[in-house]
Amino acid sequence: MDDPAFETALHELRTDRVQGASELARHCLDLLARSAQAVPASECSELLDVMVRRYDRLTAARPSMAPIQNLLTAWKSSLSRLDSSSLPALRSAVADKAREGIRESKRAMVKVLENSAGYIGSDKTIITHSLSSTVLGVFARLKDRNIRVIATESRPLNEGYILARQLSEWSISTQLITDAQLGLFVTQADLALLGADSLLPDGSLVNKAGSYLLALAAHDKGVPLYVCCESFKRRKAGLGKLQLEEMEGGELGTPCLPGVRVRNIYFDITPARLIDRWIDEAGVHKTGIPAEKTQWVADR
Amino acid sequence: MDDPAFETALHELRTDRVQGASELARHCLDLLARSAQAVPASECSELLDVMVRRYDRLTAARPSMAPIQNLLTAWKSSLSRLDSSSLPALRSAVADKAREGIRESKRAMVKVLENSAGYIGSDKTIITHSLSSTVLGVFARLKDRNIRVIATESRPLNEGYILARQLSEWSISTQLITDAQLGLFVTQADLALLGADSLLPDGSLVNKAGSYLLALAAHDKGVPLYVCCESFKRRKAGLGKLQLEEMEGGELGTPCLPGVRVRNIYFDITPARLIDRWIDEAGVHKTGIPAEKTQWVADR
Repeated sequence: MDDPAFETALHELRTDRVQGASELARHCLDLLARSAQAVPASECSELLDVMVRRYDRLTAARPSMAPIQNLLTAWKSSLSRLDSSSLPALRSAVADKAREGIRESKRAMVKVLENSAGYIGSDKTIITHSLSSTVLGVFARLKDRNIRVIATESRPLNEGYILARQLSEWSISTQLITDAQLGLFVTQADLALLGADSLLPDGSLVNKAGSYLLALAAHDKGVPLYVCCESFKRRKAGLGKLQLEEMEGGELGTPCLPGVRVRNIYFDITPARLIDRWIDEAGVHKTGIPAEKTQWVADR
Repeated sequence: MDDPAFETALHELRTDRVQGASELARHCLDLLARSAQAVPASECSELLDVMVRRYDRLTAARPSMAPIQNLLTAWKSSLSRLDSSSLPALRSAVADKAREGIRESKRAMVKVLENSAGYIGSDKTIITHSLSSTVLGVFARLKDRNIRVIATESRPLNEGYILARQLSEWSISTQLITDAQLGLFVTQADLALLGADSLLPDGSLVNKAGSYLLALAAHDKGVPLYVCCESFKRRKAGLGKLQLEEMEGGELGTPCLPGVRVRNIYFDITPARLIDRWIDEAGVHKTGIPAEKTQWVADR
């Protein structure tokens, strides 16, 4: 993967609105694996320099996505311990570590789906907001267990339509509502289920704008809210204030009017006090601050 | 106004998505005034019979709209006390009573605007949801008093765009957001302001779906919520369970998918405990259950 191809991939990473944070993190690791075997370098130290520069560029591209920061930083911290007896050996080792991160991420995802589906059980009505690949995976595991789903459109890009289409293919009985109707329909649900873009150190949820509104309505109506995600979606403490990404206002398709600023912030923050269960690869937790052992560790 | 014209007007009343409940109530009174002077009748009792049948049809057309019920019922209860010395005299008196209701409604609206604008004062950021003619009237009175507005799109019909266009013409600095961003932007506001489709007897608010979500977010973030409306928007006690109107799902423009039911309920209910001030023609109230004297009375 040469510099122009890497720059193209970086641009795609910055503008991607479809894939979730974990998928993008695995994509970044794949870019690093392919880079390790292809970037020009005449000796080991030069290879490591180039790889660290690419790491810097990738982690800077989507600073609010914790999985990218966590998975790539774990990979980077492994570099100093790799076999550097020869340049080809180091290239392979660097690429292998990146692929190991991808496998680790996928294993964690599968465990999250197992734990979530097991905890939710059968014969439930589940309300969700936006499209989370993790929540979609949970629905896939529950599809023959008599569940019903209430899904939101999720403006501005209406990714709820993608969710509804998949649920329809799985013959899961679905109600599709505007985001504004969340408060009306939450009372029909046995539980609210959300994925996560990130978790803050105290267990607060960073997710598609509107998640906080669902959480408020669920809390007000006594409907439990579960958040399911791998533990490496947890943002490290001490990183400073989280910058919530804002996209082009034009995406909303509103009229252009003098003095009217169209705002399009993608994520909101749901305080931990509104969340009833956190489900990760280690299990189901009643607190948003997990024990040390449930943290994802790169080298084991 | 003959029967076919009246049937056409009834159909328009049922399908109207643009005008608020008070405007529609005044429109109904105008239909009654025009009917009184034009329906075929050979004696006074026949006229009154026809008028009461038209009253029944009009009040049944939009059962969830309290102003229609209240203003028209007040008009009906005045009929037995009118001058019935001759048919022409009765026609005029019936029509006059209907026009009196219209004037009363407009006077109350003007007082609500005065009271609201006076209480809100200058130099405020106000967040609102949907398009209320009352809230729009308040903004008109505040437009030279350095206010800023945060307005939602208000799916499915995006009447927030109409609001934003008017605010733009008045040079009021405005941010336009998706409904899902209510929780993100409420913290920028000094207060949340909503109109009402109806008030329930305990002061709970029936308004465009999403109002409850704004109320929850405002309450959670410590931003006061004011509801401004004339007191005849208050639904009488003992009318049974309120039926929230549901419109065609096709209005949302979603894909048609087997097993996916598109829901389009227009109104939600905001509990009185989430409302900080009720502003009506009598003043500003800290409780949603006003004193008897502030109730609108038809005959005085």
